[in-house]
Amino acid sequence: MTTPHDTPLRGLLQTEPAVVTAGAELFAQELRDQAVPVREVEWRPPMDGTAEALATVLADPRLAEANARALELITSAEAELVRVAPASEVLDLKPGEFLHSGPPLTWDRASGPMRGALIGAMLFEGLAATPEEAEEKLAGPDITLAPCHSRGAVGPMAGVISPSMWLFELRDPVHGNVSHCSLNEGLGKVLRYGAYSEEVITRLEWMRDVLGPVLAEAVERHGPVDVKAYLPQMLQMGDEGHNRNRSATLMFLRDLLPHIVGQVGERSQDDVAEVCRFVGANDHFALNLVMPACKLAMAAAKDIPGSSVVVTMARNGTDFGIQLAGTGDAWFTAPADTPEGLFLGSFGPEDANPDIGDSAITETAGMGGFVMAAAPAIVRLVGGDVDFALTTTRTMYEITLGEHPSLQIPILEFRGAPIGIDAVAVARTGVLPQINTGMAGRVAGTGQVGAGLVNPPADVFVQALTALAEQVPASA
Amino acid sequence: MTTPHDTPLRGLLQTEPAVVTAGAELFAQELRDQAVPVREVEWRPPMDGTAEALATVLADPRLAEANARALELITSAEAELVRVAPASEVLDLKPGEFLHSGPPLTWDRASGPMRGALIGAMLFEGLAATPEEAEEKLAGPDITLAPCHSRGAVGPMAGVISPSMWLFELRDPVHGNVSHCSLNEGLGKVLRYGAYSEEVITRLEWMRDVLGPVLAEAVERHGPVDVKAYLPQMLQMGDEGHNRNRSATLMFLRDLLPHIVGQVGERSQDDVAEVCRFVGANDHFALNLVMPACKLAMAAAKDIPGSSVVVTMARNGTDFGIQLAGTGDAWFTAPADTPEGLFLGSFGPEDANPDIGDSAITETAGMGGFVMAAAPAIVRLVGGDVDFALTTTRTMYEITLGEHPSLQIPILEFRGAPIGIDAVAVARTGVLPQINTGMAGRVAGTGQVGAGLVNPPADVFVQALTALAEQVPASA
Repeated sequence: MTTPHDTPLRGLLQTEPAVVTAGAELFAQELRDQAVPVREVEWRPPMDGTAEALATVLADPRLAEANARALELITSAEAELVRVAPASEVLDLKPGEFLHSGPPLTWDRASGPMRGALIGAMLFEGLAATPEEAEEKLAGPDITLAPCHSRGAVGPMAGVISPSMWLFELRDPVHGNVSHCSLNEGLGKVLRYGAYSEEVITRLEWMRDVLGPVLAEAVERHGPVDVKAYLPQMLQMGDEGHNRNRSATLMFLRDLLPHIVGQVGERSQDDVAEVCRFVGANDHFALNLVMPACKLAMAAAKDIPGSSVVVTMARNGTDFGIQLAGTGDAWFTAPADTPEGLFLGSFGPEDANPDIGDSAITETAGMGGFVMAAAPAIVRLVGGDVDFALTTTRTMYEITLGEHPSLQIPILEFRGAPIGIDAVAVARTGVLPQINTGMAGRVAGTGQVGAGLVNPPADVFVQALTALAEQVPASA
Repeated sequence: MTTPHDTPLRGLLQTEPAVVTAGAELFAQELRDQAVPVREVEWRPPMDGTAEALATVLADPRLAEANARALELITSAEAELVRVAPASEVLDLKPGEFLHSGPPLTWDRASGPMRGALIGAMLFEGLAATPEEAEEKLAGPDITLAPCHSRGAVGPMAGVISPSMWLFELRDPVHGNVSHCSLNEGLGKVLRYGAYSEEVITRLEWMRDVLGPVLAEAVERHGPVDVKAYLPQMLQMGDEGHNRNRSATLMFLRDLLPHIVGQVGERSQDDVAEVCRFVGANDHFALNLVMPACKLAMAAAKDIPGSSVVVTMARNGTDFGIQLAGTGDAWFTAPADTPEGLFLGSFGPEDANPDIGDSAITETAGMGGFVMAAAPAIVRLVGGDVDFALTTTRTMYEITLGEHPSLQIPILEFRGAPIGIDAVAVARTGVLPQINTGMAGRVAGTGQVGAGLVNPPADVFVQALTALAEQVPASA
């Protein structure tokens, strides 16, 4: 015969019964009113429309191992800046080919700032003499648009890359991937926010003729710059790497400095001094290094059958798109929401374009909104309060696979950043990734109007999980 | 007749009696065990030996206004770097004259690191050919020692300033004060930590011949550098300004950069590149800007009759000394304690010299240990945990007059730094100012052995309050 201890169920009967309530507080209160000890647990129903796909994916015997592998690949990726060169050279981009942020997009569906940036790129490339001519050609058959991500590149905001623009080239020596990103123009009236006035084009020309070549020469003299090493230092210096990049900008300038100074003689002293001034005056300069570093981390986890890890979150100003490790190059898209936050000057909510840019690659890789706890001063830029910054980071652990071993958050007693967004966890909890972002003006030519907070539309996770479920082998 | 409401005392009788307990928790627990509602308040007896002086000072009708005035002067002080020049020029320091950190000191009472630094300065100035000759002369009548503070200067650790050393000159355009500080040598085997090997002297010579002149020229071309403006940015970037100065170092380098680059041609490219490399490689370089900026803030509150504000905390490796706004140039000293913290390499507690350096001027001015909450990563250098960093800052509000309007601490919802240490509050609460600090080796020539945490000896506050009480007019 068996004793009462033999089975867990019988064991239960030997102690006082305990009540656990999940969800609505009402149930717990009713019981408490009857003097019943109650333990409440937080619980939310899974995201609408995901129940069936969730069941299938959770039953996939590959899931745990695939996600563990993804986490290992993401956190072991490295990122070195190895070259600065024109897009025509490093991406073989031809005249009339443009890359843009987010998932695939056609001109007719492009938002104001995306149109503005493409118009500016046409003018910069000499493919049109006026904005009107540019628009006409952009609507025609001779111009090709493709997502930056489709070429292993990333671009902030409109993210437009044209052949003559100089790019950072980063390499992951561990997994062999390469990524590219444009050079940051600064704030205000800039191409990536959809401005295309003469001031914008003149700056792009100077970046092509002076900034790019000087940085290229400096990187060549310096040798590979360890960009990954900047990230943990940023988290000690109040930067989260999406909308605060000041410390990395200064560290980058510091590291290249002797090799910039060394160019005086070959180049005019004024040009070299202007490069120092331009980089130093733009606290966001290093965003364009952090983004491709994050891209390399996520590229390491691309194409892992069965993995529910989000490897891309990107917005083109019209659609928000994600990609999963387990679903290859497929994009899952839905209309992008408009950020809420703080506005520059007299701009207001009605001036803001929907969410735009590849910069959400920072959140995808555990930086940006995911580590706002390390950068509390950011709430003065994007809105919210310090408690929100702390709570956001803590909440992101609910939807991520693990903690990044080297990206430590000092204020959380050096806990690792929440890394590896798990679409399964997003669907189960209903918690959406938190992104902080710049806001572009809706109207082409406006430029930046503010900065704020935004989430992906829930539907992209529904679609992604459904697609992942469809790939689960029938035997599972 | 009067109603029960007429007097507060009678009013008391109309409500349930409430018990307030102060001090030992035991009393509260006893009452709670008897089901008596208790409200505990934190209370500590005043510091031993201060009761009488406290009574006198608190009865001084000038006290409140004098301290309010001190707070206003401290927080309104500004700090601009206006010049870099040798001490012989800016302080009229003559051969054989040396300044040192902390309160006045004679050679026979000097600790190992102070002796080591003075020996090194003798060698650097060519006043001795060997350490032995230097020691002999330092013990003789021809060498003059004076505190940096006696000349409006500050020096980290041993703080030795000799005529040939180049100094930062900072000016407060609001109150007209001037302060000076040496240039930072970096870490490890350096003069300020008591090392005096050939490596140390060679570096000092390079600083005299190259670094000083290049910085001097850059500052002249740039115009006054607003050092005060760095401080709030540091608090957003994880620096507390005593043992973390990385962001200010990088901002300073960024700001001078175009004017350093501009010197190529007049100076060798290698020299200019080496200056960039040297400053960029030393995260503590800006400590020597933060310190004189803090000195200017406190100098603004010097000599305010009746004020109990601490305007100086400084240590010479033997004694810890403080000065009050209300007691002029008088020093109140007691033996310096030895910091506790983390050690470099194989060094341990037995290798550490007692507390040394003028750098506690940062804490005196609301930076350093007082704003550790803004720099949680510092606990990996000085010991403690993040909770300690937060608690320390919160505790310092108990002994300070107010919150600094521009030095905001993001993680505390942008609360202003605790500023204006009030000797009365220190005596009443027994809470001692918290200092974080580098640790020098006890033996001359060793260099740095670690970093840690330390407090002033309580006795300096007893002495200071007693002296302040003696100056309270008899009519009070």
